[in-house]
Amino acid sequence: MTKRNKSIFYSKLEKLWTEDKFLCIGLDSDYPKIPKSINGSVSERLFKFNKAIIDKTADIVLAYKPNSAFYEAYGIEGLKALKKTTEYIIKNYPDILIILDSKRADISSTNLGYIKFAFEELNVDAITIHPYLGKEAVQPFLDQKDKGIIILVKTSNPGSSEFQNLILSNKIPLYLEVAKKIEKNWNTNNNCAVVAGATYPEELKEIRKVVKEMPILIPGIGKQGGDLDKTILAGMDKKNSGMIINSSRDIIFASNGNDFADAARKKAIEMHSRIILARNKK
Amino acid sequence: MTKRNKSIFYSKLEKLWTEDKFLCIGLDSDYPKIPKSINGSVSERLFKFNKAIIDKTADIVLAYKPNSAFYEAYGIEGLKALKKTTEYIIKNYPDILIILDSKRADISSTNLGYIKFAFEELNVDAITIHPYLGKEAVQPFLDQKDKGIIILVKTSNPGSSEFQNLILSNKIPLYLEVAKKIEKNWNTNNNCAVVAGATYPEELKEIRKVVKEMPILIPGIGKQGGDLDKTILAGMDKKNSGMIINSSRDIIFASNGNDFADAARKKAIEMHSRIILARNKK
Repeated sequence: MTKRNKSIFYSKLEKLWTEDKFLCIGLDSDYPKIPKSINGSVSERLFKFNKAIIDKTADIVLAYKPNSAFYEAYGIEGLKALKKTTEYIIKNYPDILIILDSKRADISSTNLGYIKFAFEELNVDAITIHPYLGKEAVQPFLDQKDKGIIILVKTSNPGSSEFQNLILSNKIPLYLEVAKKIEKNWNTNNNCAVVAGATYPEELKEIRKVVKEMPILIPGIGKQGGDLDKTILAGMDKKNSGMIINSSRDIIFASNGNDFADAARKKAIEMHSRIILARNKK
Repeated sequence: MTKRNKSIFYSKLEKLWTEDKFLCIGLDSDYPKIPKSINGSVSERLFKFNKAIIDKTADIVLAYKPNSAFYEAYGIEGLKALKKTTEYIIKNYPDILIILDSKRADISSTNLGYIKFAFEELNVDAITIHPYLGKEAVQPFLDQKDKGIIILVKTSNPGSSEFQNLILSNKIPLYLEVAKKIEKNWNTNNNCAVVAGATYPEELKEIRKVVKEMPILIPGIGKQGGDLDKTILAGMDKKNSGMIINSSRDIIFASNGNDFADAARKKAIEMHSRIILARNKK
């Protein structure tokens, strides 16, 4: 870390890392996939599903990451479920981080609406944002000193190279220029993190070099195809740390039967253990 | 237009353009700025404000563009107001387009949540999205054949050049490469449009050349500093058309007194007239 004051986001992360916690579970709670055994209204079923997953995995995770698309899809019902989920985590597992994966970004003060929702209404610890509009546009996010602002740099999807890997006139690819700017100019409050997909270990390695000890949120292991050993080797900082490793569907939909929460725990423990082993291989 | 079938979005736009309508009013209904004379709950006050603006301007506009940040800020209340607003426009002014300015973009099927909300729950005509993840990621948006997918290319904010104007190894700036890709590869359903800010008339001109007759959503006139004459000259297609010219705060907050709706109408008519005059200057 640099000499600047640590944000609460960084402090919480570091504490969890010292406890060997690196796994983030993506609460991509796709309503049609929720086991039939869970009853109630849309918001009740979504919340009960999340609660069951959370209660079975809270002892081994670093963060939960609800993706707002799965909640926004169901309007008011989805919103209620999202709020109940974040309230539940904050009340029962206050040390675990909550990352709202909403990939927002608008122009300057317009962002205050998204900030109010994420950090006042839901009181999450961090949010994901798009970089395309530039630092000046997303400054209101960066000004949230105690909250984590996680910027998309190299995303895990198969087509992410279309723009992200374009080579600039200074010979470096766009994603790396974005990472450089974040490290050099965006992170004055020591509250930034970047997203780099496990599906691109070479790019992840380059990004790690550039962002130094900045936290990296790494999606794309499991179903998306990222190899965990390669990912960890590429993504670790000098302290063999610095990673938020996300898995979503592989864990939460490990089973669609009554045993879904136990299956999720089993899968989460497997991932957690593989992360520990991969770190020790270095 | 190309030989491909027109999307409903394009057809609605063309009809409105033949009526000399180019003005889009941004319903950036910032709750604390809503005149005190409007009473009721948060959702009622937001909706009544929007309704008053809409009823006073519907005869001269092409589109209304609610920005989701201002509604998301108020959770369920904001959501109710947004839904009532879109329902009201659809019921009373079915020919006017509704653009949800939510600047979304996630990975592949995750986008279906945002699509469900925008096009099923709200039933809007178009949505704005970020390009950074690439075509493959936002394909579910592009697959909405009858809906407009409006992609950020060159945004109106002062710092938009940080990444958007980076020069690529092929000597062209990123924003223009994005525009080229959209024109060449993304628009197979003839339902795409691009965003190019009025604050950058040179870039707007370049974008118009590249996207040919594709609609351009042009924010940034008025308070943000864009010069309307220059904008129109740069943004028009060969038929002196093809533009969705947005103004938000200049119109909706033209007055904060009881006369806010009349003041909004006065300002909207002024903008509408200036657009007509600027087109004729060419």
